Amino acid sequence: MSQLALALLHYPVLDRQGRVITTAVTNLDLHDLARTGRTYGISRLYVVTPVAGQRDLAGRILGHWREGFGAAYNPDRREAFSRVEVAPTLGEAIAAWRPLAGAEPLPVLTGARRSDGISFEACRELARTRPLMLVFGTGWGLAPELFDQGWPVLAPVRGRSDYNHLPVRAAAAIILDRLCGEAD
Amino acid sequence: MSQLALALLHYPVLDRQGRVITTAVTNLDLHDLARTGRTYGISRLYVVTPVAGQRDLAGRILGHWREGFGAAYNPDRREAFSRVEVAPTLGEAIAAWRPLAGAEPLPVLTGARRSDGISFEACRELARTRPLMLVFGTGWGLAPELFDQGWPVLAPVRGRSDYNHLPVRAAAAIILDRLCGEAD
Repeated sequence: MSQLALALLHYPVLDRQGRVITTAVTNLDLHDLARTGRTYGISRLYVVTPVAGQRDLAGRILGHWREGFGAAYNPDRREAFSRVEVAPTLGEAIAAWRPLAGAEPLPVLTGARRSDGISFEACRELARTRPLMLVFGTGWGLAPELFDQGWPVLAPVRGRSDYNHLPVRAAAAIILDRLCGEAD
Repeated sequence: MSQLALALLHYPVLDRQGRVITTAVTNLDLHDLARTGRTYGISRLYVVTPVAGQRDLAGRILGHWREGFGAAYNPDRREAFSRVEVAPTLGEAIAAWRPLAGAEPLPVLTGARRSDGISFEACRELARTRPLMLVFGTGWGLAPELFDQGWPVLAPVRGRSDYNHLPVRAAAAIILDRLCGEAD
């Protein structure tokens, strides 16, 4: 398998009414995605927001756990956060990852309401051929403009019901486990 | 498959130093586990804490989303929370679920540091024969006294690294997906 990265987008994403908005960075998304990503051996997690003040906030959180009090208090958290970076746009996240990825990264979009997605098996195949950046939306999911780029879209995670409102923290964990967890 | 329930224990669990403590109920654990559990069709999520004030807090959060402002604001959240209950002990959670479960529930313990666990395949087999209550610990995991009860223990989730510090929100999502997610 080639390298995997995650991007957590705070813009452009939708609100409940389907309007394009910018969401706020949350401390908890950073912690959960960093820990889950580290568990599954991802190369990088990019926290993407166009708002400079929000990037500063994310940077302060990362600094606390990488170099500040938190680094000594909780070395496991330091290790998880060592792979997290902040970027203003998805394009800049891809550009930042390119030198590490070893080949041209391909974004793979995720979303709960898509019916045109590729299967998890197809995504695993794709991951054998080139580095993938899995793109997750906050709020009510990624905005339509992202789906107009021609990038592959991953099939939604379905549970055992018609209810389809997983937290992004849970969706990312399930998707990473399906793509690169151990078999049993 | 028989019915599944989740129990989220705030006592007895461990802290970083391995001492038995009671953790605080967090709003986010309730939201994430309720939504993930609902997605995978679980029968009930029991939020377990011996502290009456904490049970009151959990009850107020549930009330807000089930009957209060949140119920109208976000009907999906109301639906997720309709399956959440609060209990003072694991024993009382099991007793509360027994009439719904249709047969005697069997607790299945989870934890990141166990090497004696049954496989996911074995757990799926078990789930065909009787109702299972998957037991998750907050803090640094379930206390040893729970592992002395003779209940089955599920093998830890392994990713693609030696790093093994999944948030309970992510671990629960991955375990539910492995036990009862759709195949692809």
